[in-house]
Amino acid sequence: MDITQRPLSGKVRLEHDLLGDMNVPVEYYFGIQTMRALENFHISRVRLYFFPEFIKALADVKEAAAMTNRDLGLLDPVIASAIIEACGEVREGGFNNQFVVDMVQGGAGTSTNMNANEVIANRALEILGHQKGEYKFCHPNNHVNLSQSTNDAYPTAIKIALIRSIEKLITSLKWLVDAFQSKGTEFAHVIKMGRTQLQDAVPMTLGQEFEAYAATLAEEVDRLEQNMKLFLEVNMGATAIGTGINSDPDYTGLCVKHLRSITTLPIVAAKNMIEATSDTGAFIMNSSAQKRLAAKLSKICNDLRLLSSGPRAGFNEINLPAMQPGSSIMPGKVNPVIPEVVNQIAYRVIGNDLTVTMAAEAGQLELNVMEPIIVHCLFESIEMLINGMDTLRDKCITGITANEQICRDMVYNSIGLVTALNPYLGYEASTELAKEAQKTGKGIYELVLEHNLMSKEDLDCVLLPENMVKPRRKGDRC
Amino acid sequence: MDITQRPLSGKVRLEHDLLGDMNVPVEYYFGIQTMRALENFHISRVRLYFFPEFIKALADVKEAAAMTNRDLGLLDPVIASAIIEACGEVREGGFNNQFVVDMVQGGAGTSTNMNANEVIANRALEILGHQKGEYKFCHPNNHVNLSQSTNDAYPTAIKIALIRSIEKLITSLKWLVDAFQSKGTEFAHVIKMGRTQLQDAVPMTLGQEFEAYAATLAEEVDRLEQNMKLFLEVNMGATAIGTGINSDPDYTGLCVKHLRSITTLPIVAAKNMIEATSDTGAFIMNSSAQKRLAAKLSKICNDLRLLSSGPRAGFNEINLPAMQPGSSIMPGKVNPVIPEVVNQIAYRVIGNDLTVTMAAEAGQLELNVMEPIIVHCLFESIEMLINGMDTLRDKCITGITANEQICRDMVYNSIGLVTALNPYLGYEASTELAKEAQKTGKGIYELVLEHNLMSKEDLDCVLLPENMVKPRRKGDRC
Amino acid sequence: MDITQRPLSGKVRLEHDLLGDMNVPVEYYFGIQTMRALENFHISRVRLYFFPEFIKALADVKEAAAMTNRDLGLLDPVIASAIIEACGEVREGGFNNQFVVDMVQGGAGTSTNMNANEVIANRALEILGHQKGEYKFCHPNNHVNLSQSTNDAYPTAIKIALIRSIEKLITSLKWLVDAFQSKGTEFAHVIKMGRTQLQDAVPMTLGQEFEAYAATLAEEVDRLEQNMKLFLEVNMGATAIGTGINSDPDYTGLCVKHLRSITTLPIVAAKNMIEATSDTGAFIMNSSAQKRLAAKLSKICNDLRLLSSGPRAGFNEINLPAMQPGSSIMPGKVNPVIPEVVNQIAYRVIGNDLTVTMAAEAGQLELNVMEPIIVHCLFESIEMLINGMDTLRDKCITGITANEQICRDMVYNSIGLVTALNPYLGYEASTELAKEAQKTGKGIYELVLEHNLMSKEDLDCVLLPENMVKPRRKGDRC
Amino acid sequence: MDITQRPLSGKVRLEHDLLGDMNVPVEYYFGIQTMRALENFHISRVRLYFFPEFIKALADVKEAAAMTNRDLGLLDPVIASAIIEACGEVREGGFNNQFVVDMVQGGAGTSTNMNANEVIANRALEILGHQKGEYKFCHPNNHVNLSQSTNDAYPTAIKIALIRSIEKLITSLKWLVDAFQSKGTEFAHVIKMGRTQLQDAVPMTLGQEFEAYAATLAEEVDRLEQNMKLFLEVNMGATAIGTGINSDPDYTGLCVKHLRSITTLPIVAAKNMIEATSDTGAFIMNSSAQKRLAAKLSKICNDLRLLSSGPRAGFNEINLPAMQPGSSIMPGKVNPVIPEVVNQIAYRVIGNDLTVTMAAEAGQLELNVMEPIIVHCLFESIEMLINGMDTLRDKCITGITANEQICRDMVYNSIGLVTALNPYLGYEASTELAKEAQKTGKGIYELVLEHNLMSKEDLDCVLLPENMVKPRRKGDRC
Repeated sequence: MDITQRPLSGKVRLEHDLLGDMNVPVEYYFGIQTMRALENFHISRVRLYFFPEFIKALADVKEAAAMTNRDLGLLDPVIASAIIEACGEVREGGFNNQFVVDMVQGGAGTSTNMNANEVIANRALEILGHQKGEYKFCHPNNHVNLSQSTNDAYPTAIKIALIRSIEKLITSLKWLVDAFQSKGTEFAHVIKMGRTQLQDAVPMTLGQEFEAYAATLAEEVDRLEQNMKLFLEVNMGATAIGTGINSDPDYTGLCVKHLRSITTLPIVAAKNMIEATSDTGAFIMNSSAQKRLAAKLSKICNDLRLLSSGPRAGFNEINLPAMQPGSSIMPGKVNPVIPEVVNQIAYRVIGNDLTVTMAAEAGQLELNVMEPIIVHCLFESIEMLINGMDTLRDKCITGITANEQICRDMVYNSIGLVTALNPYLGYEASTELAKEAQKTGKGIYELVLEHNLMSKEDLDCVLLPENMVKPRRKGDRC
Repeated sequence: MDITQRPLSGKVRLEHDLLGDMNVPVEYYFGIQTMRALENFHISRVRLYFFPEFIKALADVKEAAAMTNRDLGLLDPVIASAIIEACGEVREGGFNNQFVVDMVQGGAGTSTNMNANEVIANRALEILGHQKGEYKFCHPNNHVNLSQSTNDAYPTAIKIALIRSIEKLITSLKWLVDAFQSKGTEFAHVIKMGRTQLQDAVPMTLGQEFEAYAATLAEEVDRLEQNMKLFLEVNMGATAIGTGINSDPDYTGLCVKHLRSITTLPIVAAKNMIEATSDTGAFIMNSSAQKRLAAKLSKICNDLRLLSSGPRAGFNEINLPAMQPGSSIMPGKVNPVIPEVVNQIAYRVIGNDLTVTMAAEAGQLELNVMEPIIVHCLFESIEMLINGMDTLRDKCITGITANEQICRDMVYNSIGLVTALNPYLGYEASTELAKEAQKTGKGIYELVLEHNLMSKEDLDCVLLPENMVKPRRKGDRC
Repeated sequence: MDITQRPLSGKVRLEHDLLGDMNVPVEYYFGIQTMRALENFHISRVRLYFFPEFIKALADVKEAAAMTNRDLGLLDPVIASAIIEACGEVREGGFNNQFVVDMVQGGAGTSTNMNANEVIANRALEILGHQKGEYKFCHPNNHVNLSQSTNDAYPTAIKIALIRSIEKLITSLKWLVDAFQSKGTEFAHVIKMGRTQLQDAVPMTLGQEFEAYAATLAEEVDRLEQNMKLFLEVNMGATAIGTGINSDPDYTGLCVKHLRSITTLPIVAAKNMIEATSDTGAFIMNSSAQKRLAAKLSKICNDLRLLSSGPRAGFNEINLPAMQPGSSIMPGKVNPVIPEVVNQIAYRVIGNDLTVTMAAEAGQLELNVMEPIIVHCLFESIEMLINGMDTLRDKCITGITANEQICRDMVYNSIGLVTALNPYLGYEASTELAKEAQKTGKGIYELVLEHNLMSKEDLDCVLLPENMVKPRRKGDRC
Repeated sequence: MDITQRPLSGKVRLEHDLLGDMNVPVEYYFGIQTMRALENFHISRVRLYFFPEFIKALADVKEAAAMTNRDLGLLDPVIASAIIEACGEVREGGFNNQFVVDMVQGGAGTSTNMNANEVIANRALEILGHQKGEYKFCHPNNHVNLSQSTNDAYPTAIKIALIRSIEKLITSLKWLVDAFQSKGTEFAHVIKMGRTQLQDAVPMTLGQEFEAYAATLAEEVDRLEQNMKLFLEVNMGATAIGTGINSDPDYTGLCVKHLRSITTLPIVAAKNMIEATSDTGAFIMNSSAQKRLAAKLSKICNDLRLLSSGPRAGFNEINLPAMQPGSSIMPGKVNPVIPEVVNQIAYRVIGNDLTVTMAAEAGQLELNVMEPIIVHCLFESIEMLINGMDTLRDKCITGITANEQICRDMVYNSIGLVTALNPYLGYEASTELAKEAQKTGKGIYELVLEHNLMSKEDLDCVLLPENMVKPRRKGDRC
């Protein structure tokens, strides 16, 4: 619950900007520009404080800027010290409820940047022994935002916040990979039919299937990390359009140094600041990596729902843990609700990727003004993916059990077995066997013996599970 | 703030379902199945009570079902009466904070349906003089959900809620159309250059431009209304898969009659109940209509930003009202923040349309289990479109002013003027004039007189604004 | 194979435009502007002649314009007559190989319009007894394009061509609906398990399932027809930006009258010509309707692949006709290749819908210059949908057979049967039965008798197929 | 023109497969399975031979497999030698017109794989001195496809073909980067207004703007290369589902070795063959990289169209080369047709990315059967991007000229100049100046002198172009 939803004392202070005067409740650490944003942007009901990592990163950026301005002699050390202290408090979350602007806003993030500038300025004023609003002692623009523009401070904060959020995403992903890997080991001995095009193919183990899920998701760790690194390039010091107008030539280097120290991230300055100021390519690429993860999760959840279909009229190879009664009308029905919700998260993430792409394409000339919706989508997708993967692991994967006998019976009852006999009987004869099995409903094993095509001993050898689920030389003995 | 975020007394009641027992705080009108949903689905932070229209529609559906069950002799009139009274209270919003399940959920909406069943059952119990949880007197499943399934009650409630939400959307849209129309009238006399492919074309009035915006948006009213009607077909009585198992043959007809009466909407029963139970086509079509509206709004906002570009190095034909200081580093800069936020809303709506499409495609066999994310996206898009259009009207369109002189000067200074002379001078001569104007920087008017191609009188006649902005017979006099 | 891929005589004629001179091979009916387009736009390898309906519609538009210009005294009747005759020949397809510009082009369709103007002009010249290129007798711009602009002629032709193409699409769709309906009748007696969330639900007939496919697709006929009507509004006479500059006030009305007569379509003039000239809303809406059809086809094909999964380790309820050997390594394997290709068509159509949406959103001011890619996508989607639906009908649906016994066994072996007993045994007892069946592997039928819960006679009555697949009063006798 | 479109002799040979017999024209190197594919898949009109790189890669794969089978003693060296020779001829393009199957097909690529197997087998038969169709001497399945499955050979060939296609894409991209870089140098001295949010911001050089385009596109080289590497992992030897059934344990290693040698690409075997067989993640990631490139190109083309808008009523900072007359009705109009077509290509590529994503998500269990549409989209996008970038460079970028005086005048006439005075006059005074300029229409330069706020000397120094377009210490002298 943010400060604007709480009861107020009724006391106000008067603030002023380019457009005129406005009364600001004394409880508000933010000032007139945030007030204007609240009036202008009542759009999504998702406000800045929904994403504490973002607030934290704004504090990091403002602190690094204050240190740099102090070092360059541009900012009185006493004011700098107060700003730095205020940033520290903001970073700890003590003022989260003052970050109230809508995540979806016009103005290329100006409202978010000003919300941060105003809260930090007013908290710094208090630290300096002044009243909120006495901006001559510490001004949101002239002091907190000094040497900065929304166009460098805002995207820099976003990138830092996204790096940290993606790190959490990767942690959840790794846990999920482990869960699949454990099941891979647990089910290593369960022989089952592999299927291609939903048609019975050749045998494999259920362990191999779950290991493949682990393997395919493990690749996502690399993709996420690799693309996350694109966020390490920032444009602090580029000010309005990347030319660095009104900034000191030493500002960028020093500011990046402070940022590295504050965040412990290997941040660097972009090589071409004009390009960096308008470019949103890193957002597209990270969104794409999230989309790829989403597509893989969705595929896996589709599989889990297929494999657990039944219990009588489906594949019925595995059982998902029952999480809730499945039906108010069908007694005893239990549904795969956890994979289902992960599928839906995936569609949302893919939809968000489209929004990000369109917003990125819509940049014009020296700035992309559509960054707020990009950021909103990325934070939302990351959060939903984390929630989805944690839920999937805890409430589904770890509790999966196998119907071993059913799995095994389907293999030995299958026509696909004939593939393993292919090298021994030839493709033509095998095809005839398959046709006969299909027609009569009999098993391949049975038919081979019936027609005396192989000895029972040889047949058993070839059809040993461990021989069917990996490459094997034709002459090899059992 | 919902009930789960409030302090509790610590008192509980014991509830039971297929999966076992659970303690439910006595303050909760919902019961064990909602509790399970809260545990299972911590996904989006957007909960049912975010969309009061949805709760209202759930109450409508439950009330109609109770009336029908009573009429058919399936439900004790006393219990029916209590359920109906409880539904009335829910409809009024008195229990909104008890609708707490995540909008994004597995189970095809079972959690939402059970949240409604449980709250209504417990409130009915109180009305009947019992304690919450004494379900033998009024049971969430056996009484409130009687003759229903999530698979009919949930989509029916969604559709009713969407109809009402779209009606609000249409209201906002009509207001916006009016605002553009007013500006069309206001600017009827302002002559300006029309542009195709961003190149100067031929003259028009600024009024024609704004009228065209009004006209193009007015068409959306028809599209939204037309597609909204697809929601009037419901599948009450179809129960689990549309065969109507366990429902009375008269149930559907009677229930629809009650629903019509309760909602005052011309609801009808679907012709093919099996089709209706799994089909999500109406959601796709409505989402598409929203997408089209979004695309048009985005195009218009792009135009507004272009036309107001400048003030010195842009088109500068119109002025958007200043809503906030545009820059912390560039004094006096004012940005088109309102159109910018509407653009972003449009990208979001288009992203949501993709999510809806993917979820709709993912339906399998007798049910589409992905409905929750569809509904979430549709409600979100509608809300953001309403917010965006209201903001656009109030904070932008109504305050737009025209730079008449600049508009006029661009016409008379343009090479495009030559088009109007085409019928008099011929295409070849006109092209030569255009080339000379381009080369020398001179005006067409000037050049025509310089070369004695027309008399000043004739030239003035042809170039009269009112003659250039509409069809005109070649020989017509001024 | 178009004319540019054929051997040439080497003889040329000299043509001229704003940018200079160029030699044009005498075999070419098109002229210098088409030549420039060939040089500029080597993009997609899909050329105008790929879509003969489009050429036909261009001829319709040019003919209507020529008639109108003649009637208004703007065009010499002799020239008009030659143009009209040339249009007739083009309409018949005799010059298709002269329509060579890339479908994907800049310039808002100018190249396509000029390709048509030039071919018609040169053919008219021949009819008049002149040589190709003697444009003083009949000029592509001054005569064929008289009173027109690309911005009205091009979209008008597109709309007419799309209407005719969609009519073909609807024909194919109706045939497909019929095929599903026939199977619905054929399979009316086949009882099978319905499934929700891939879990066994309650019984239905296979006929009901196929009828539902017919019903859901039949709705698409309405959607396609309804949205197709949006194309009946054209902007002939609007010229460059919709103001009608240089056109006669009577031109629009007369031209629309001729168009109606030529095409036999109820074409009308747009109410607001400026809006109509830049608006691409009708394309979005039609693309959306195609997307919805695609999503439904994809859902149905997913179902067909599920229902035919097996033959031993899947659902195995139906058999799709074998169209090709399924595997070079797995003898006897036959795959559902036809539904698979329809799924892929659906993804393509949905991708095209996104392209259309982005292109529509990108319109600026008085024109949408992105129309060529919109048109390309729409024609491609329609063609692929027609091909896909015809293939699906002929090579899959009509040949489907049912595994009746397997379907029936799954019903009687299912736990879901218990739902039908719910009204007789109560939800609690039914749930216990379901649990016991799940645990022991026994059938519900068996267990009911074992526990003496119902008489065999009553049980048989309730479980009669015809009683389980529709609503039924509790007391009804068999 | 492929072989199926040519006149035939009427002579046929009889072929046989699982489904029966069929007459194959003797001119066809392909056989019965390709014939079936031609019958089944008449979908897109885009056939295999449209993409010669794909045919080449199929030859590479078949050759490597033949070598490996020979080395392992599985294939008679004489037959192997003939197959290898045939593969060489196919690679050189001599049989391109025999690769006739539709790119969009069901069956997970079986038709494409069999088209290759059949053509190679029949050509090998000829080399061996036999007739086409005498498969006992060299069989499409038993010899050419030996130790392979469509599920390993097809995706491996795709990946090799995509690597080579992306290399060409990168070459075109680098050329385009160079073109922008050259313009960056050429325009280094042209001072102009930078714009954010389409509003005048602060000065920059036109050279900086074009250098930023070069820089942002240069980043795409890295992204494309990095993601292209994901294609180096192949699954040869994994056969049907990745377990390697019926393949020799040494097959994979040896085959990859041969592939590396044949292709000179650093190909490796996938670590988890089961994962590799069903995974389509690399396609998503590459498609995403193409999408990102498309989004950037589109943004740049939007900018070019903005900067060249006019000539009188627009920004008019640059001139794009005239490529074609712009209008049949507006004499002298020239439009930005090249950027316009690139925008449209971008929308297509983004649409294709969606198709790829949906197809990738739709994989089920041990295989993704939707690969054909993925491949189709990727090849198409690459080709259109190459065509688009080459066209953009040759027909637009290299011919751009600057309107230097107009650019310079807009700077000195701008209000944004005041930003450069900010450090000298303070934000408050600067804001007042800006307001006065806006109100009076006067220039900032003029007003500063009028109000005696700075000496002319100091003012000139601060406003020196070279001082405004980069960081600068406040005290620095001119």
